[in-house]
Amino acid sequence: MEFLNNNVCSPKGFKALGKSIGIKKSGKADFAVIFSEVLADAAAVYTSNKVKGAPLIVTRNHLKDGKAQSIVINSGISNVCTGEKGIKDAEETAKLAAEELGIDANNVLVASTGVIGKFLPMGKISNGLKGIKDELSITPEVAKAIMTTDTVEKEIAVKADNFTIGAIAKGSGMISPNMATMLCFITTDAKIPSKKLADFLKNSVNKSFNMTNVDMDQSTSDMAVIMANGIVGKADEKKFQNALDYVCIELAKKIAKDGEGATKLVEVNVKNAATAEDAKKIAKSIVSSNLVKCAIFGNDPNVGRIMCAIGNSMAKFNENLINIYFGNEQVVQNGRIAGFNLSEAKSIMKKDALSITIDMNDGKGNATAYGCDMSYDYIKINALYTT
Amino acid sequence: MEFLNNNVCSPKGFKALGKSIGIKKSGKADFAVIFSEVLADAAAVYTSNKVKGAPLIVTRNHLKDGKAQSIVINSGISNVCTGEKGIKDAEETAKLAAEELGIDANNVLVASTGVIGKFLPMGKISNGLKGIKDELSITPEVAKAIMTTDTVEKEIAVKADNFTIGAIAKGSGMISPNMATMLCFITTDAKIPSKKLADFLKNSVNKSFNMTNVDMDQSTSDMAVIMANGIVGKADEKKFQNALDYVCIELAKKIAKDGEGATKLVEVNVKNAATAEDAKKIAKSIVSSNLVKCAIFGNDPNVGRIMCAIGNSMAKFNENLINIYFGNEQVVQNGRIAGFNLSEAKSIMKKDALSITIDMNDGKGNATAYGCDMSYDYIKINALYTT
Repeated sequence: MEFLNNNVCSPKGFKALGKSIGIKKSGKADFAVIFSEVLADAAAVYTSNKVKGAPLIVTRNHLKDGKAQSIVINSGISNVCTGEKGIKDAEETAKLAAEELGIDANNVLVASTGVIGKFLPMGKISNGLKGIKDELSITPEVAKAIMTTDTVEKEIAVKADNFTIGAIAKGSGMISPNMATMLCFITTDAKIPSKKLADFLKNSVNKSFNMTNVDMDQSTSDMAVIMANGIVGKADEKKFQNALDYVCIELAKKIAKDGEGATKLVEVNVKNAATAEDAKKIAKSIVSSNLVKCAIFGNDPNVGRIMCAIGNSMAKFNENLINIYFGNEQVVQNGRIAGFNLSEAKSIMKKDALSITIDMNDGKGNATAYGCDMSYDYIKINALYTT
Repeated sequence: MEFLNNNVCSPKGFKALGKSIGIKKSGKADFAVIFSEVLADAAAVYTSNKVKGAPLIVTRNHLKDGKAQSIVINSGISNVCTGEKGIKDAEETAKLAAEELGIDANNVLVASTGVIGKFLPMGKISNGLKGIKDELSITPEVAKAIMTTDTVEKEIAVKADNFTIGAIAKGSGMISPNMATMLCFITTDAKIPSKKLADFLKNSVNKSFNMTNVDMDQSTSDMAVIMANGIVGKADEKKFQNALDYVCIELAKKIAKDGEGATKLVEVNVKNAATAEDAKKIAKSIVSSNLVKCAIFGNDPNVGRIMCAIGNSMAKFNENLINIYFGNEQVVQNGRIAGFNLSEAKSIMKKDALSITIDMNDGKGNATAYGCDMSYDYIKINALYTT
């Protein structure tokens, strides 16, 4: 695999734009469009939160035929809890974009992220859409325009074999996906029919975004979309899945590391659990625990809290077989706190990424989850954010 | 019901003690004994965390016959993840106490709370137990001696009809009970056989501690125990259940309000949900959301986060029928953010208790959950707590 210094515009035939249209008071970029020169096969996964944003409902409708050619995204307002008017506004956005791009409105997908409960400013969106066809380019600020509390752009592109995959994502708070993610938009120039594409996407999302947690709050707007425009022809399935896994896992790590208030990335590797499902439950339970996250922020190797989180995971396990490592330092042996070197453990924790390995010694199930620590700034950001 | 200014020593025939035996470095009280003059019927509920503390295992064994006469409790070290030696230490504690009290070791229950992974200091416990029979009194500092990060004692006593119920509890962090609670010890002089007592306790715990959340981390040491020594004879069942409900709910509120770093109590009343189970899921999901808790700390009526938490609850509901009130101020109507008075909503939130009512307009299910806000001090306490 070759790593490219770009994003959704790296695969052949894709262009995009990112700009400010005045939705955010700060004047920061808040509007993005992704466009494929030709009609693409497409698939998506969505939040399992039962309160779903209007854009998800419209996108799901437009994706029934497995085809898409453009995605229009705004940040600042999520268009959630907005009823019939919210749906109408999302449809109108697709229709206006389609007219500008000279394509069918049914092939335009929409996504929104930001404050819940406000209506989209349709005047600003309508103005923002005027002339977009001429603004599209292959080096756009598209990743920046979809950010909310994110502090860094999350973008990636890889070339594998004959095809290229590019992607952007946003997400920093309200991150506990359980079917899809925050927002993630993936493009490829490989030729893959939409049903197959949906399978590939689901596989990759299960290993990446669905294993990521910032704060246990699953958003109402989560969505991951992939468009395959087929320009370079068919791809080797295994190579494609591997490349897509890589792209999604890297973006999941970027999201976890940029979690609201986070000072470090936490990677929890659970191995030799009774089953893969048990490994997954254990890994997710650990990255989800507020107490574990606070201890990591304080560089405190409080392994009792990790044992507590394992116990709360609902997984099958034998407490007396568990070994736990911080980096290479063993901190738990056979379910008992090991006589580890406290200053060594603390110095491992002070780095900007912490790898925790849990060996369950109970089978062959493996899983990795991605999270972050929990700091004063998490409270600050979320006690002061809007309304 | 009459409210008494005491605790587990209020019902006839109960004495207790609370003192320091040197487990806590601070020199604060860390050791308590509760004693009934006569053998009592007893029942308990325990944590559903699969990693269980040694004291729970020993107490469960000793309660197989539904009888108990004393409870020995220490704070500072929880005796969890301590294997065979942990069990032996808990058994030894019961045996030494039994010798001092002149009763059967099988009728002594044990409980521990504090740091996970350390062994009990058996020398200190053995010294602390010497002469306890003479130290027992009816005005002991027992509630103080079971505290860890708690900032206030949690005790209550009520007289109803012919009987009295007294109780103490501790809990401030790692609070998300799902079968029992933190630690809670309840005494009564009513005569109630242990099986009946277990039913009463389970009913009350389901309405109180199991509806309380500080941080989603269910402890390994949760336990609620009730002892009924029968000294005043039989009690009216309905009156007893009501009084026990009251005692448990009041203690649950005290625990929520004293949640680690909390600045206010949050009471979420869900009414008219499809079923009582749906109401419960919704109420618990709201008090469990970090984002809702941060917004409450910031006095920000961010109702979008409440709608998000409802959506994540896995309950059945119709989004378009939901009305939400902060105090008497309606903030959501038919699932849409209502045009509420922002300064009025903020002033309601600034008080030291916030009542949120969710009318689902979808059936007859009601439930109430108890929680708190999430502040900088939650992070501070948990980033710095031991190891």
